[in-house]
Amino acid sequence: MASTSSLALSQALLTRTISRDGSGNRFSVPAFSGLKSTFPRTISTRRGCVSTSSHSFRPDLVRAAAVEAIETTTDSSLVDKSVNTIRFLAIDAVEKAKSGHPGLPMGCAPMSHILYDEFMRYNPKNPYWFNRDRFVLSAGHGCMLHYALLHLAGYDSVREEDLKSFRQWGSKTPGHPENFETPGVEVTTGPLGQGIANAVGLALAEKHLAARFNKPDNEIVDHYTYSILGDGCQMEGISNEVCSLAAHWGLGKLIAFYDDNHISIDGDTDIAFTESVDKRFEALGWHVIWVKNGNNGYDEIRAAIREAKAVKDKPTLIKVTTTIGYGSPNKANSYSVHGAALGEKEVEATRNNLGWPYEPFQVPEDVKSHWSRHTSEGAAFEADWNAKFAAYEKKYPEEAAELSSIISGEFPAGWEKALPTYTPECPGDATRNLSQQCLNALAKVIPGFLGGSADLASSNMTLLKAFGNFQKATPEGRNLRFGVREHGMGAICNGIALHSPGFIPYCATFFVFTDYMRAAMRISALSEAGVIYVMTHDSIGLGEDGPTHQPIEHLSSFRAMPNIMMFRPADGNETAGAYKIAVTKRKTPSVLALSRQKLPQLPGTSIESVEKGGYTISDNSTGNKPDVILIGTGSELEIAAQAAEELRKEGKTVRVVSFVCWELFDEQSDAYKESVLPSDVSARVSIEAGSTFGWGKIVGGKGRSIGIDTFGASAPAGKLYKEFGITIEAVVDAARSLI
Amino acid sequence: MASTSSLALSQALLTRTISRDGSGNRFSVPAFSGLKSTFPRTISTRRGCVSTSSHSFRPDLVRAAAVEAIETTTDSSLVDKSVNTIRFLAIDAVEKAKSGHPGLPMGCAPMSHILYDEFMRYNPKNPYWFNRDRFVLSAGHGCMLHYALLHLAGYDSVREEDLKSFRQWGSKTPGHPENFETPGVEVTTGPLGQGIANAVGLALAEKHLAARFNKPDNEIVDHYTYSILGDGCQMEGISNEVCSLAAHWGLGKLIAFYDDNHISIDGDTDIAFTESVDKRFEALGWHVIWVKNGNNGYDEIRAAIREAKAVKDKPTLIKVTTTIGYGSPNKANSYSVHGAALGEKEVEATRNNLGWPYEPFQVPEDVKSHWSRHTSEGAAFEADWNAKFAAYEKKYPEEAAELSSIISGEFPAGWEKALPTYTPECPGDATRNLSQQCLNALAKVIPGFLGGSADLASSNMTLLKAFGNFQKATPEGRNLRFGVREHGMGAICNGIALHSPGFIPYCATFFVFTDYMRAAMRISALSEAGVIYVMTHDSIGLGEDGPTHQPIEHLSSFRAMPNIMMFRPADGNETAGAYKIAVTKRKTPSVLALSRQKLPQLPGTSIESVEKGGYTISDNSTGNKPDVILIGTGSELEIAAQAAEELRKEGKTVRVVSFVCWELFDEQSDAYKESVLPSDVSARVSIEAGSTFGWGKIVGGKGRSIGIDTFGASAPAGKLYKEFGITIEAVVDAARSLI
Repeated sequence: MASTSSLALSQALLTRTISRDGSGNRFSVPAFSGLKSTFPRTISTRRGCVSTSSHSFRPDLVRAAAVEAIETTTDSSLVDKSVNTIRFLAIDAVEKAKSGHPGLPMGCAPMSHILYDEFMRYNPKNPYWFNRDRFVLSAGHGCMLHYALLHLAGYDSVREEDLKSFRQWGSKTPGHPENFETPGVEVTTGPLGQGIANAVGLALAEKHLAARFNKPDNEIVDHYTYSILGDGCQMEGISNEVCSLAAHWGLGKLIAFYDDNHISIDGDTDIAFTESVDKRFEALGWHVIWVKNGNNGYDEIRAAIREAKAVKDKPTLIKVTTTIGYGSPNKANSYSVHGAALGEKEVEATRNNLGWPYEPFQVPEDVKSHWSRHTSEGAAFEADWNAKFAAYEKKYPEEAAELSSIISGEFPAGWEKALPTYTPECPGDATRNLSQQCLNALAKVIPGFLGGSADLASSNMTLLKAFGNFQKATPEGRNLRFGVREHGMGAICNGIALHSPGFIPYCATFFVFTDYMRAAMRISALSEAGVIYVMTHDSIGLGEDGPTHQPIEHLSSFRAMPNIMMFRPADGNETAGAYKIAVTKRKTPSVLALSRQKLPQLPGTSIESVEKGGYTISDNSTGNKPDVILIGTGSELEIAAQAAEELRKEGKTVRVVSFVCWELFDEQSDAYKESVLPSDVSARVSIEAGSTFGWGKIVGGKGRSIGIDTFGASAPAGKLYKEFGITIEAVVDAARSLI
Repeated sequence: MASTSSLALSQALLTRTISRDGSGNRFSVPAFSGLKSTFPRTISTRRGCVSTSSHSFRPDLVRAAAVEAIETTTDSSLVDKSVNTIRFLAIDAVEKAKSGHPGLPMGCAPMSHILYDEFMRYNPKNPYWFNRDRFVLSAGHGCMLHYALLHLAGYDSVREEDLKSFRQWGSKTPGHPENFETPGVEVTTGPLGQGIANAVGLALAEKHLAARFNKPDNEIVDHYTYSILGDGCQMEGISNEVCSLAAHWGLGKLIAFYDDNHISIDGDTDIAFTESVDKRFEALGWHVIWVKNGNNGYDEIRAAIREAKAVKDKPTLIKVTTTIGYGSPNKANSYSVHGAALGEKEVEATRNNLGWPYEPFQVPEDVKSHWSRHTSEGAAFEADWNAKFAAYEKKYPEEAAELSSIISGEFPAGWEKALPTYTPECPGDATRNLSQQCLNALAKVIPGFLGGSADLASSNMTLLKAFGNFQKATPEGRNLRFGVREHGMGAICNGIALHSPGFIPYCATFFVFTDYMRAAMRISALSEAGVIYVMTHDSIGLGEDGPTHQPIEHLSSFRAMPNIMMFRPADGNETAGAYKIAVTKRKTPSVLALSRQKLPQLPGTSIESVEKGGYTISDNSTGNKPDVILIGTGSELEIAAQAAEELRKEGKTVRVVSFVCWELFDEQSDAYKESVLPSDVSARVSIEAGSTFGWGKIVGGKGRSIGIDTFGASAPAGKLYKEFGITIEAVVDAARSLI
């Protein structure tokens, strides 16, 4: 790949932003001159860091943060005012929408104000500036908090009219944060626990890139990942999975705020949540700080963030004790303020209580003026970094080219030629093994290709042989070791994918265990994160492990899910073809269902054909009118092909169709579809070692579907195929009955 | 319900066991006389208990168990021999099957020998004796351990020939433990973390029943729940969810052994799992004991179990450090012994190493003789308990009747009459509210009906108003408060359902969050646990919360899953009808998708009709040949009915069909199906606010399906229905185009 200049890079990134007014320069990079000296806050932040050693498992470390005398650039009354502005923007937007969650923004306004105004580095006019600090609101229901912050910080994605159309059709301010709708929102949250997992993925991405690309004289990758999570996130198992990994990996630049407000939807958290979160995080290996006064303790919050930044080898949890719905005289500290508008009367009471004389949605002039500096500061951050990148590119052209690919999502020309191809003479193999050939081939040519398995690398065949393990001490490695944590794995990969367009994370487990990670996979699909899911042991063909391990309904369940491609390749060419599309379609995740058992390289398959989703691999008819069409996927395509041979011996004309990806077939023209499945041919037989659910549409009212609509059993694979009737004979019999 | 005698009860339970040889008396209750005095082990166990106070969060409590001088009935060399018998039964079975997991049984043989031989109370000849101690092998892949124990203990379900047919078609010894195949196995495990969650459910069930039914003079409910979990279970998020709850609920009779062997499939656990598990469990509120020598430290293990039993207010984790594959000279302590047969040579080396002269599958006579007492002891346990129950029944007839219902699964006659019925004149309501009426009605008449929500009780409408909360201090309550822990919730409910046939647990969250708990729901279906899943907010009709909260593909995904009923009721009668079937079909779980929004009570619906799955609610045609059939479910049945009115005004004959449960319709006769969906009528339109995937089979090749095959959006519900085209007009237009 040709090296890319930093300016071109910025421009490439800018094309991702959504311009509503058609003006070309809304997100263009502003002039940078003379802005560099205006960063006292950042400098003071760094100077103020006290290096605190952190010892695991010592309870005395769970403590209130020491309130140190620190320099602040903002007087406390203005902070109060800014914090209240955030609160009332949330209150007003929820009130206007007559739905939403005011409680969290009212409680988290102080910590988030300090974070966005005093610590985070970002460029409001280019939300996609590569080296920005990332922020993830894991408690996504409180999204008005984030929208208010983006509005104050000067992001064009959230203007006053956007706040006023909160939760309305077509707005940039949906009911939960969506990265694909609102520039400035990094990931899609709402389902609890997903956000903190995404944050772990973002922090992993940073640590990995820093290890690969930073030089002693040029730390080109250097940002923090911040997240706010609530009690709900903490209760979800996924958060424990990913927080265990975050500590294992030593993600020192991950800083999570735990909004400790003691209220969840069903009331006081005491009814279901009495563990010691602090102690649990220490057990996981985190540095833990407790800010006791999250409502007004600005200096406590500042000191905690400084301390967290000083701890380099561990992620930090800042437990911030807050009052949900702070400021509401009758609803604060109760579940009633969690998920409903305050109501006109209580809004008025809250205005009186907090002394807020302003109109709904009004930002006081001094607050506006205070925040306005972020536009110029942000532009300067980016300009500064662009200069740094230019120097880097000059001195380290090869590394710069790789990093550019990851930043831009532009892959080296001809990358797809690295994929292996096969002829029928090639030895048969399990598609999980053929998949490993593809993974290794792709990792060599695509700099941002990395991934791993949930403790099944040797079964899923996912190791990248040319690379080491991503570990605390070796973060340059590209083999991720997730442990037995499928759900966390998927959500971490979403974070990696959404860190930079050129990251292609893959992750793996047994296909049946997609059930453990389905919530994360759905968010891949919704948030347009092009994760590749490598799912082996894809049918009863796995044999003796039995029905707990044998997928049945899983193919159907993903075919029904929007914006995800469900591939079931039959051999080497189809496996390579599936990877080609999975890499190409960056805004659609892919699931590859792969066999444990050996399969032959079939005549008639090809990488190119996979792009059509369904295609003919053999046919002895003429005039697009075979006697019967046999349709198979994956390991059963071979059975369809063998059944066709039998039928042809009887003089029948038979077409064999591979239906490797239904979603891609759906995208084809009517003419193409007709050329594969002519409407005049109603004699159609499908065979797939999975649920027949959904096949009715393909085989039509008169066709037959051979599959398995019960759970499997524990026995050798051959025996299972026979007992469940997934056989050549069954296909031949069905075909005969239809001709 | 008439009160049931204890003998009748035992017999009712015995009918659940599977008799292979047709003899009526294989599981009959043996004579009990004179056996009572043969329980020195149990008595000594109790006498030896040292009451140890347990303080949370004090690291000094994480320690090796004190090795106390205790009485044992078995000399150490016989224990060695018995332990090695377990090891070699596992080795031999895996070797014969040429697949399986020998490593765990070899490492866990000591702790499990002591548990099954010295501590647990069970009756091998009646695996379903109500008051038995429960054992769950959460690390289900090590199932040969459990099969070996059941074999030694004298369970008829695992005889020598069963061990020899390990992992073969039709055997009682499948590749992972399946309660529905093997009496003596309590639940179905294998997918990691599920088992410990089931164990929490079993322990919850015991604590709840004990609180409701025990009397100062008669503790009729009194058993322990034991579980073995490995590193894999510990990494899964679900285990953290349920272990947090277990401590919150104070499940003191739950004792979990953590097989701490430092090996998982990908190698040393150090590559992905470096947290402090002990500390984490202390943070969760467990009592933690560390047995440092799990390979030979029999007395350490005994002391730990005694200590655990003495701690009444907390569950106990006994971390037992073991060597995976203990005894194998070349494979012990490596991942190679985890999931594959040792191989002939290494089996031989292991025999030599452990000094094992016996033939494959041979149980030495002294070991056999030692274990043989469990048959008579077990019979005596049950006889003793039966006598206790008879006394209980005499003194507390009302409580005995309730308890009998829970034990037997026989519900009071006429229970279904408690369900509410509705006429079209009744006010419209959201089906989530109508569901709450059913839940409350059922809880009043079915003693084992209990459940709750994952922190959404006030949204899912699941509170039982006549009952309190199940909490540590109030375990008699029937409202379960799961916190935001969907996955754990489902698996805990599986445990409750499988504790006793009369338990009907329900659990609730938003329908979209079934994605978080799908693995547990699949195990409900596989293991025949009749859990009721109350899933509200079932479509884009939930409105402003947006696409992260709006189910699309979920109806399809459950319709494709075996042995689970997916209901989408349209109004009050259909909701009550769905509950009636859900309660009746105890071996099939049910999912109820319920609306957030208000729906009318429709003419033509009834409780009885729901049993057919699909049925006609209105029709103005004659001769079973309407011009068009409109098919709807749930909230869209109203739209179908209104579209029918429009079309009838135009003179068309229109049938409206409710398709409330596809699985039940599939079970109907061809004649019935033809009466609802005549094959001659190809003009069919379906409408459902979800994916159209799967509807092809119902509407046929010429029909039309109105649905939503993309993600939803954040906006008021009415706006979304209009924008996504789920409207009366769309149905009318589609129908017109087909007539």
